Amino acid sequence: MILTVTLNTALDITYRVRGLRPHASHRVSEVTERPGGKGLNVARVLAALGHEVTVTGFTGGSTGRSVQEQLARAHGVVDALVPVGGPTRRTIAVVDERTGDTTQLNEPGPTVTPAEWAAFQEVYEDLLPSMSAVALCGSLPPGVPVGAYAGLVRTAKAAGVPVLLDTSGEPLRRGVAARPDLIKPNAEELAELTGSHEPLRATQDARRRGARAVVTSLGRDGLLAVTPEGRWRATPPTHIHGNPTGAGDSAVAGLLSGLVEHLPWPDRLSRAVALSAATVRAPAAGEFDRAVYEELLTPVSVTAA
Amino acid sequence: MILTVTLNTALDITYRVRGLRPHASHRVSEVTERPGGKGLNVARVLAALGHEVTVTGFTGGSTGRSVQEQLARAHGVVDALVPVGGPTRRTIAVVDERTGDTTQLNEPGPTVTPAEWAAFQEVYEDLLPSMSAVALCGSLPPGVPVGAYAGLVRTAKAAGVPVLLDTSGEPLRRGVAARPDLIKPNAEELAELTGSHEPLRATQDARRRGARAVVTSLGRDGLLAVTPEGRWRATPPTHIHGNPTGAGDSAVAGLLSGLVEHLPWPDRLSRAVALSAATVRAPAAGEFDRAVYEELLTPVSVTAA
Repeated sequence: MILTVTLNTALDITYRVRGLRPHASHRVSEVTERPGGKGLNVARVLAALGHEVTVTGFTGGSTGRSVQEQLARAHGVVDALVPVGGPTRRTIAVVDERTGDTTQLNEPGPTVTPAEWAAFQEVYEDLLPSMSAVALCGSLPPGVPVGAYAGLVRTAKAAGVPVLLDTSGEPLRRGVAARPDLIKPNAEELAELTGSHEPLRATQDARRRGARAVVTSLGRDGLLAVTPEGRWRATPPTHIHGNPTGAGDSAVAGLLSGLVEHLPWPDRLSRAVALSAATVRAPAAGEFDRAVYEELLTPVSVTAA
Repeated sequence: MILTVTLNTALDITYRVRGLRPHASHRVSEVTERPGGKGLNVARVLAALGHEVTVTGFTGGSTGRSVQEQLARAHGVVDALVPVGGPTRRTIAVVDERTGDTTQLNEPGPTVTPAEWAAFQEVYEDLLPSMSAVALCGSLPPGVPVGAYAGLVRTAKAAGVPVLLDTSGEPLRRGVAARPDLIKPNAEELAELTGSHEPLRATQDARRRGARAVVTSLGRDGLLAVTPEGRWRATPPTHIHGNPTGAGDSAVAGLLSGLVEHLPWPDRLSRAVALSAATVRAPAAGEFDRAVYEELLTPVSVTAA
């Protein structure tokens, strides 16, 4: 069983409109809703790969109920979300049918009280012993201390559970210092952490700050991994066009599944790159085009970096 | 007790953002939610005026539950909404903090099945005998027949309950032919119905099509009434600046309360104009600034038209 943590879960809503114009009124032609937040997207991909996954984090209000109702219908995902008084945030992606471009509106999320944060930590500690790995994903909602991920990394390590951290800014900086097994920043998050825009140098620097392994996402150019077992660059065979939302979450799912299956690093990286590319081709975050995934798995190029 | 019907109820959500730009990502700084749809706005104003009100129409999904939870906290409003399988629509008003301008995104609403429509008609018929007046408000959700309001007008008249119709397009055209006691079109709805852009001529024409009385909303210029008792023009003493959303719903509440209180037409019209103006000054539809309302009630000018 794999655990994913999403402290700022979301109800992801997608609207299709014909030409978004500020200060005008728009009829939405199509509405889709799905559980969101990075950890829930990772869980959905892991479940699709055949892994058993438990999700935790916070849920509240009628939006939280919608998230949980949809999770209950997802195969292979166990709901261990912790209730909070405030409502789970909505994110609204307004897709312009004419251009395909997306305008994003993100609610801030509920303010988590100290008692709710304490209740979460207890649930987390109780879940860990039965987990083969844990992923800590995404931003922190208001009220959760900025050092939250550092504490959760330490708890996982004390329980002997490998821990992946995928966040940004100060929560990443503090989390890295707690020595997670793996971080997966993108180039921008890495530059913010290390001050360097040179990917290899910055990735090595991030390792020195405490992460056992660092896999940097270079967008279309694939992944760059610096690990105790070696350094690799994994590149997709072709540039895939589509919607990059969720590609990073699919990479996390690829790395995490490879970790619990004890795959060699090059195989973990090919899987992560092929899953990312297959997600760019799929319509929604947390989904991937299985045919594209299987087609790309072998031709991903993995070379020593 | 007054009945308001809102077939396409809504959860009205307002987002405040700093500068809406298409194809960018925005952090929402403030989220407010309230029950919406014209009939629910009318009910809220009637309740604030001290009337007992029952609301009916459709409710479904987690958005419908949110609407009902908030209605339960509103004083003087009885919830007689009828459950449907699909979710109640959301409307999202994105207010740009810099300019004060609003961008509107409206979901279409649930598709109502024939069985659900039949269930509603039964509830409506059961409610009518205890009502002193009924208002039929707003657009029709998908699945409800275009002649729906015509049928509901006939049922109200058969039960001897005065009926106000506030809608547009083909549902208004068919509804007027069923001879409602009062319609309250705005200039645009009236022009669509009659083909005339000359307010007095168009208002008279609308009466000939079947409405016992027609009160046309002329926006900032107030109301024009053509009734069996006479013709009047009611004008606010000053131009009020603010958000016109909901001003029409407040006018409906003013007219309806005046009807059940058996006020003379000029008093009904002053009340409707003062309430409209007080709503333009208030932050949300279905609310009004009581001080503005009381201040404007006397100086509204009502003259023979």
